[in-house]
Amino acid sequence: MSGITGKAVVAQSGGPTAVINASAGGVIETALANSSTFTAVYGAHNGILGVLREELFDLGKEDPRQIKLLSRSPSAALGSCRYKLKSLEASRADYERILEVFRAHDVRFFFYIGGNDSMDTADKLVTLAGETGYEMVVVGVPKTIDNDLAYTDHCPGYGSVAKYTATTAMEAGRDTESLYTHDTTTVMEVMGRNAGWIAASAGLARRSPEDAPHLIYLPEVPFSKEQFVADVKGCMAEFGRCFIVAGEGIRDADGNNIAEVGGSFAKDAFGHTQLGGAGQALRMVVESEVGVKCRYNNAGTSQRNARHFASGADVAEAHMAGAAAVEAALAGTTSKMVSLVRQDDGGRYRCTTGLVDLADVANAEKPVPREYVNEAGNGVTEAFLEYARPLIAGTAELEMGADGLPIYARLARHWVEKKTGRDYRT
Amino acid sequence: MSGITGKAVVAQSGGPTAVINASAGGVIETALANSSTFTAVYGAHNGILGVLREELFDLGKEDPRQIKLLSRSPSAALGSCRYKLKSLEASRADYERILEVFRAHDVRFFFYIGGNDSMDTADKLVTLAGETGYEMVVVGVPKTIDNDLAYTDHCPGYGSVAKYTATTAMEAGRDTESLYTHDTTTVMEVMGRNAGWIAASAGLARRSPEDAPHLIYLPEVPFSKEQFVADVKGCMAEFGRCFIVAGEGIRDADGNNIAEVGGSFAKDAFGHTQLGGAGQALRMVVESEVGVKCRYNNAGTSQRNARHFASGADVAEAHMAGAAAVEAALAGTTSKMVSLVRQDDGGRYRCTTGLVDLADVANAEKPVPREYVNEAGNGVTEAFLEYARPLIAGTAELEMGADGLPIYARLARHWVEKKTGRDYRT
Repeated sequence: MSGITGKAVVAQSGGPTAVINASAGGVIETALANSSTFTAVYGAHNGILGVLREELFDLGKEDPRQIKLLSRSPSAALGSCRYKLKSLEASRADYERILEVFRAHDVRFFFYIGGNDSMDTADKLVTLAGETGYEMVVVGVPKTIDNDLAYTDHCPGYGSVAKYTATTAMEAGRDTESLYTHDTTTVMEVMGRNAGWIAASAGLARRSPEDAPHLIYLPEVPFSKEQFVADVKGCMAEFGRCFIVAGEGIRDADGNNIAEVGGSFAKDAFGHTQLGGAGQALRMVVESEVGVKCRYNNAGTSQRNARHFASGADVAEAHMAGAAAVEAALAGTTSKMVSLVRQDDGGRYRCTTGLVDLADVANAEKPVPREYVNEAGNGVTEAFLEYARPLIAGTAELEMGADGLPIYARLARHWVEKKTGRDYRT
Repeated sequence: MSGITGKAVVAQSGGPTAVINASAGGVIETALANSSTFTAVYGAHNGILGVLREELFDLGKEDPRQIKLLSRSPSAALGSCRYKLKSLEASRADYERILEVFRAHDVRFFFYIGGNDSMDTADKLVTLAGETGYEMVVVGVPKTIDNDLAYTDHCPGYGSVAKYTATTAMEAGRDTESLYTHDTTTVMEVMGRNAGWIAASAGLARRSPEDAPHLIYLPEVPFSKEQFVADVKGCMAEFGRCFIVAGEGIRDADGNNIAEVGGSFAKDAFGHTQLGGAGQALRMVVESEVGVKCRYNNAGTSQRNARHFASGADVAEAHMAGAAAVEAALAGTTSKMVSLVRQDDGGRYRCTTGLVDLADVANAEKPVPREYVNEAGNGVTEAFLEYARPLIAGTAELEMGADGLPIYARLARHWVEKKTGRDYRT
């Protein structure tokens, strides 16, 4: 035990998932249950932005039913952000502001739920706190639908997006199957700019060769238009229809995104190339080069929030990871991220937690390994399916309203009085 | 009772739904249970195409578990088509071929599950059968996610797409809410070329003003770009974010589809204007005229097959409608479509079936009435919500596999030997 006591802040960062609130629930419930250490539990509004702006709210004052409901609610109930801090040198003012806010409120514990950028921020915060002699404990909780964090078997959020992706591929695939007299082919685009874990998960739907998806393309495998056309023609010859899944970030051998090469989407108003166009580009290739009609499905942000059909395993593990972060803090651990560890329990999957260095996670990515992709580069292997199947097991419980729709948490946000005496421009 | 006996053919037509198989299940189970009237029950492969091509299979030879599973399976397990027959004069060869096939197999009962085009085909078939002295019974079963059939309170398939649409709007809306520091607005495009029933259903998700969707646009209300920009700006001022739902067929005051006016999608390889671009056009308007980032979600064919979260009421009613068609036939009824009739059971919704003339359904459409849309034309009214709420009640049961995914029926299709002695070119 570290012996340190003080307030705790929990924050959520980056793209929401179906279960990032379950992780927050795990943190909040466990921290509130240990009030001798955690003198209060605050939420930061919109991740690190809420700390910078001193927008904190007292989670101890929330209706306990709403805290409980977090585990059954998608998206980020605390609010999330995409504010990226750079190095300690480049973003020194931000890091100092964070510590200024933490000192003002006697925040001694920071639980940050996010991806590798968030773990990088958390790691640098530990460094600066040490340099300035401010004793505090920082523990990260992994979160990303992209499943590309290193040093953890998988990431909370992935199991649910995988279950939803596989299910909708199965369902839309049945549509293509029944209407192959007309809607011969379908491209389903899924998220994943650099990693193809989500695209790969669609392969879980394919119980027999005739099942969708027949072809899967991942950013990890260089995309060849010629090979793609040959793949689709081969599939049409075999099944009379073709259901294709593509990760948004697929790119050619020169590293150009297909969404750009396809030319179907210009840069947006902010000058970013809009991904989310790869599937549209493939649709156009199918119609022009194969000469058959092609449907285009892109669930967009629906896929990462599909709590209505989430993985039971994922929800449980996300909550467990949040709770483990607080338990680690209670045990005096700092500067670590909770990891998920796959145990082989006599041939049965079991998941426990571990602890890994924030700095290690911050500086690494985990693409889909080549042995999880078939030789042709257009589908997944049994090794991938064995890896992924336990992650989508079970259907998570929902709280359903009398109106036939799920009930999701919304926090009241009892704001904490500001103490730093100054605004901070972000 | 008509006293007529013979074989029955059941067929599915048009775009699949989450529950068209439940209707087929209702027909098949009820017909197989009345073997003294129905000497066999055949499925037509891909709707009327299967009749024209004499591609029939014996449903009595299917594994009864697969027949039972139809009610838990999306899409069209018999196979569907978009083959459109015209008038008796223009498509006379097709109608004569249908009767040729029916005569050859002693088919005396035809149950056609589809929309108004299908009811038109069924109606004309009755006429020709009468003219040529072939005694047969034809009963239609309504089906369309678009909910635009007249003479029925609502259509099987609508309740499920409504439940899914509302749920995903709620979920993606929470994404926009949590990430409004970055992803400020989202456009969710839904199906509906002429009718806005699906777009309207998203309104079920809005329990309080801050809930998504904040703005809903239907094809029935002329779309004004200027008003739209003002609507979005107003919403941003009030909530700091904006979640927009648009039917794919929204059009301006001159009747031009926004997808075309937007110019973002060209005609496809077949010369059709590709709808499914209206939301993309709105996204571009938001980014250029409001100057905020806009996300674009379009579930495409996933929405109409989302059996994984279907309406319990819808599944039950779809099955009931199929069974009612067979019961009507047993009672000697012909040339009718089963309708769904809303009963006010002491203030509680109850649904029964009725019978309406095929010809009436064939020649009518039911757009969303103006009183279901708010005065500003950018949302729905309480009257609509009262209409729609019972249709999404209950969550339909699923058969889940050990692999964590739903199990959906696939029929073995025991082909019936051809008897007409000739191929027919379709």
